[in-house]
Amino acid sequence: MSGFSTGQDDAELRATLTEVTTATATALLVQRGYPNAYMSEARPIQAGARACGRAVTIRFGPMRPDLAVRLEDRTAHMWQAIESLSLGDVLVIDCGGDTRGGTVGDILAARIKRLGGVGVLIDGAIRDPAQIRELVGLPAWARGTHGSGYPPYLVSLDWGRPVRCFGVTVLPGDYILADDDGAVAIPATLAVEVAEAGVETERKETFIRGLVEEGESIKDVYPPNEATLRRYEASKREAGR
Amino acid sequence: MSGFSTGQDDAELRATLTEVTTATATALLVQRGYPNAYMSEARPIQAGARACGRAVTIRFGPMRPDLAVRLEDRTAHMWQAIESLSLGDVLVIDCGGDTRGGTVGDILAARIKRLGGVGVLIDGAIRDPAQIRELVGLPAWARGTHGSGYPPYLVSLDWGRPVRCFGVTVLPGDYILADDDGAVAIPATLAVEVAEAGVETERKETFIRGLVEEGESIKDVYPPNEATLRRYEASKREAGR
Amino acid sequence: MSGFSTGQDDAELRATLTEVTTATATALLVQRGYPNAYMSEARPIQAGARACGRAVTIRFGPMRPDLAVRLEDRTAHMWQAIESLSLGDVLVIDCGGDTRGGTVGDILAARIKRLGGVGVLIDGAIRDPAQIRELVGLPAWARGTHGSGYPPYLVSLDWGRPVRCFGVTVLPGDYILADDDGAVAIPATLAVEVAEAGVETERKETFIRGLVEEGESIKDVYPPNEATLRRYEASKREAGR
Amino acid sequence: MSGFSTGQDDAELRATLTEVTTATATALLVQRGYPNAYMSEARPIQAGARACGRAVTIRFGPMRPDLAVRLEDRTAHMWQAIESLSLGDVLVIDCGGDTRGGTVGDILAARIKRLGGVGVLIDGAIRDPAQIRELVGLPAWARGTHGSGYPPYLVSLDWGRPVRCFGVTVLPGDYILADDDGAVAIPATLAVEVAEAGVETERKETFIRGLVEEGESIKDVYPPNEATLRRYEASKREAGR
Amino acid sequence: MSGFSTGQDDAELRATLTEVTTATATALLVQRGYPNAYMSEARPIQAGARACGRAVTIRFGPMRPDLAVRLEDRTAHMWQAIESLSLGDVLVIDCGGDTRGGTVGDILAARIKRLGGVGVLIDGAIRDPAQIRELVGLPAWARGTHGSGYPPYLVSLDWGRPVRCFGVTVLPGDYILADDDGAVAIPATLAVEVAEAGVETERKETFIRGLVEEGESIKDVYPPNEATLRRYEASKREAGR
Amino acid sequence: MSGFSTGQDDAELRATLTEVTTATATALLVQRGYPNAYMSEARPIQAGARACGRAVTIRFGPMRPDLAVRLEDRTAHMWQAIESLSLGDVLVIDCGGDTRGGTVGDILAARIKRLGGVGVLIDGAIRDPAQIRELVGLPAWARGTHGSGYPPYLVSLDWGRPVRCFGVTVLPGDYILADDDGAVAIPATLAVEVAEAGVETERKETFIRGLVEEGESIKDVYPPNEATLRRYEASKREAGR
Repeated sequence: MSGFSTGQDDAELRATLTEVTTATATALLVQRGYPNAYMSEARPIQAGARACGRAVTIRFGPMRPDLAVRLEDRTAHMWQAIESLSLGDVLVIDCGGDTRGGTVGDILAARIKRLGGVGVLIDGAIRDPAQIRELVGLPAWARGTHGSGYPPYLVSLDWGRPVRCFGVTVLPGDYILADDDGAVAIPATLAVEVAEAGVETERKETFIRGLVEEGESIKDVYPPNEATLRRYEASKREAGR
Repeated sequence: MSGFSTGQDDAELRATLTEVTTATATALLVQRGYPNAYMSEARPIQAGARACGRAVTIRFGPMRPDLAVRLEDRTAHMWQAIESLSLGDVLVIDCGGDTRGGTVGDILAARIKRLGGVGVLIDGAIRDPAQIRELVGLPAWARGTHGSGYPPYLVSLDWGRPVRCFGVTVLPGDYILADDDGAVAIPATLAVEVAEAGVETERKETFIRGLVEEGESIKDVYPPNEATLRRYEASKREAGR
Repeated sequence: MSGFSTGQDDAELRATLTEVTTATATALLVQRGYPNAYMSEARPIQAGARACGRAVTIRFGPMRPDLAVRLEDRTAHMWQAIESLSLGDVLVIDCGGDTRGGTVGDILAARIKRLGGVGVLIDGAIRDPAQIRELVGLPAWARGTHGSGYPPYLVSLDWGRPVRCFGVTVLPGDYILADDDGAVAIPATLAVEVAEAGVETERKETFIRGLVEEGESIKDVYPPNEATLRRYEASKREAGR
Repeated sequence: MSGFSTGQDDAELRATLTEVTTATATALLVQRGYPNAYMSEARPIQAGARACGRAVTIRFGPMRPDLAVRLEDRTAHMWQAIESLSLGDVLVIDCGGDTRGGTVGDILAARIKRLGGVGVLIDGAIRDPAQIRELVGLPAWARGTHGSGYPPYLVSLDWGRPVRCFGVTVLPGDYILADDDGAVAIPATLAVEVAEAGVETERKETFIRGLVEEGESIKDVYPPNEATLRRYEASKREAGR
Repeated sequence: MSGFSTGQDDAELRATLTEVTTATATALLVQRGYPNAYMSEARPIQAGARACGRAVTIRFGPMRPDLAVRLEDRTAHMWQAIESLSLGDVLVIDCGGDTRGGTVGDILAARIKRLGGVGVLIDGAIRDPAQIRELVGLPAWARGTHGSGYPPYLVSLDWGRPVRCFGVTVLPGDYILADDDGAVAIPATLAVEVAEAGVETERKETFIRGLVEEGESIKDVYPPNEATLRRYEASKREAGR
Repeated sequence: MSGFSTGQDDAELRATLTEVTTATATALLVQRGYPNAYMSEARPIQAGARACGRAVTIRFGPMRPDLAVRLEDRTAHMWQAIESLSLGDVLVIDCGGDTRGGTVGDILAARIKRLGGVGVLIDGAIRDPAQIRELVGLPAWARGTHGSGYPPYLVSLDWGRPVRCFGVTVLPGDYILADDDGAVAIPATLAVEVAEAGVETERKETFIRGLVEEGESIKDVYPPNEATLRRYEASKREAGR
């Protein structure tokens, strides 16, 4: 039934999801029992960018020197996580909201982009946002900015495991969809469903907004009653969809 | 004495107020005993827009299912408040700062605009800010953005009554003036006075800034002493005002 | 050894520092034992501006009427601090994070600029940011915006003494460097060192980012190992630096 | 079927509810679709007190002088609300979390108690908690304490309407149950059900805790499996309940 | 007219103020134009203690190593401030609310007490509160507790100057009055007036509370009308005051 | 050299650590390069209790229904972590500061105690604190209290891994020391050292406090100069230690 066949290319799925707004995806997830998937505090470092990719996760905690020693160097997890990236991934960094150290700067961002990464999402601070935006061109969302690298105050704990990010539990492999309004974590098992329903929802809402702009009262058309839904279906037939 | 006659059109008053900055209106209200009229956390979703209109208020609280049931549907107050709008109104939404659900999205915004509403001010979250800004064209100020509609976490309590909004008590009928810097609630009884004094204040401050830019010390001209005020009056006479 | 001779013009030092990003300056200060010099909450009122100047400090506290009386008028410290400014100074205002009153508006900003001030940094609220940005042209960083002047809620305590600003201790005479990402306080004794090392760091990071963009793994080049450093030195010789 | 007959005295219902902990009542409300009924920030001014009563609500907002004037005096709503109290009521005060003014002090508390009020619950500040606790003897829960009365910063907006209180929507007539751990709002239509199920839940949990204290693993008894539930039922029969 | 003659001992004034609650002192200061004198976040480390003394102030900021060096050691200001204390002083410590380091521990508290200090008030963290309470016996109010001393994160900036403390400007020489509910800063010039009016206010409120407890409505007696005030005056004459 | 031999019983080490205050342990860890080991927001549910045990960790995140399904039931990790406890363990629960659901209630606390657990430390909410304190007798520290269990808003992510707790990174096996003032995480490799140095530090500080109470100036004895240290050593010899 799905427009996405078994052999559906992940790139196509991500491309379709990218046409869906975070608002629409969030609402569809609410309807499917996920009221807590939206990350409003995820601020973009650029205007107008949209990204969709699979989450690769890494987790940071407040610095303690024995961890830095035990991991041989203070960057091991981060370097492993980044080198694991492949086309269509988003690096998701859980700092517990701690913004006392920039985690990704322009050089790491360049590597992420080179490996096919399509974005970074940081519940903490980013470093060098201007260079990442203008020189590297990697879309990024973060809670804040910090001039320092992370070692003085933060240390990585592990990567590739579930994380908390802006009040949402993110699992490795979730689809992260992000735009100017924030980000949303879409469980992999729901991604096709959200992509298909999302495109349809955007069309229906555009149709309804058109009616409202022509002067119809919201009482009749939003949420749409039976008559309005029939008019929408008719409009689709007319448009040959 | 007032430049606004009895028959003064409300549209003219709103137009005059729109020439006044929120900063100037705030300062004039402080002088008149209202130190708490400014809403600095009211963030615009667009750059450069200015709006002035009369407040139509609605109040939301955390969801409880019996309220949703008792009101027949979860949107009754909101739909009533919006359909009550007429030319020159601003919809003021008190969510108590709770940003867990977007209250107004692009379709409601389209209806508000169609009915003559000139803006929305939300102490909570807005939904679809990009579409509201670019497709609908309704100026809006909010505390945050949320991808979901409001029903999962919020429910309307009443409308048309006093509300708290960004730490300011707003009464129905107050004039809401908003620009890039925030918003201010002007009691209806003071609106003409603020409009007139505001325009005069903007002129006087422009005059003083000119003197400062020419090199005069602030000790003499700001706040203006008698001599400076006389120079200002002279400049007005020269300009034929 | 330093590229800055004894007679080094302060203007030249400030110009060199302005080429360094706040991120680079912050990291260099961390390496020199100053992990707490960066102010991430210092939000610019304009995009793209960079400023560097010596701190002139002033401190505000919550209003109490006896202080306002004793100082003859409520603005004495502020006026003195501003009139003390000379070429290359930055006015640093410590309000303890209290944003209930705008401290600097367009007229004071015009005076600051006229006297040679290169920026203001306010751990509190600014007033009239649009006019300061567009009419006055003085770069400014603040925690928030407020429409009112400061007298209703704030009063100056003293000026020319150490202050706290966005969680950083700032001394009079520190070099304040600020850009889109925030601000950093550079102790005067370290300013030359940070300027020189900063320019070198920016060059080296640009070189490394280039390698990464060409496809080299971060494991080899970032942080740079011996071989990478030799390649960088070779590149400098080639460039004739 | 209910242990509470039609003629059930409200006092008996309140007495039964008072035997239920806020934790048990909260969990029962979660099961009935009310996940948002508990107020953890409601701090008691006394240790060990428990209270249960029907909510009489009043709402405050930031001061504006025209409201104080229009209501003839600044205390009208508060005095009306208090004089409306009868046996078994709890005064619920919504200040929006604003603690800049004490709302109820020892004299108002004495009046509340004299009229039969069984407690006050304030999402704001209380005044004179030591005297209310030791001299008046009225149980109270609040967010904070303030030495001043409310007029300098707060003004009443209305009373007898829905309010927000510690992140919970409270309706007039809700049963407020409060103890050392916080407070919970129980919709009037669910009060009998919560009272009956609550007493049963407390008994069952005491039975299970007994098993655990004797060494049984939580895997078998908590949550109780069929066998454990049968043992509980048997224990009730033995106890003659 | 005053009960305090010219030769009034400061100890007697402090003793009288100690009979006044922080609530009453705060209300009297509001009436005299000081709406911002109360510190509700000042939490006592002991129950039931009351203290009143003259403020000796010290100010801390985030650590920077050059300050620690320049002051020869990191404790110079603190040691000077403490050794300056004499009978009836309260040490007031402004850490800007930063609780990352305990400022006063049991040994410094012992010295403060030995020198006649009657309390400490810390807008920051205290160390060793149990020992200070139980072994040293010095009343203390603070924002929090920290196990570490202050040097890792904080450094003193100066002492004997105006400070901000829990959102209140405190001047050296202010009378600090503190009890279970918080603390209040009383300007020295108002201390006698607050002491006298405070004792009278406590008496009048006790009289009114008595009337309320006997069943009179607050509408008649609180705030007291003319008749109630006459009854109070009569009660005073009867009591021979 | 150590007073703890190779065969040192862990119980003895924990007993010795329990004699050390969290303040002393924190200061010793600062000296050893761990400035971030103290958890000041860990509030005890009882007065006067002290606990020391090895950390067993569990991590919670915001609820998502697929996790609850995949783990077969919503409590699996928690039940496993608790059943893994043995004598001298402390259960450490990382909820990311989210207090929307009580994690441990009286029944789980009873099981923890039965298995030899000596405390729980929750960066989130506890349930039933009164029963845990009075009926179960298990010491507990938490950020808040919640009446509900955790399933509505929280779900466990994993256990037995590093966690963040009150701003401190805690590893499984760390010694958690907690008292009225908060909690501290002591790396296992430093536990013997902190225990020994801690007892000595407590003795030395008691000696110094005694000198101060007898009237010596802190300038000479705190921090102790050479002469004071010699007096302390002499006092130890006298006491036969």
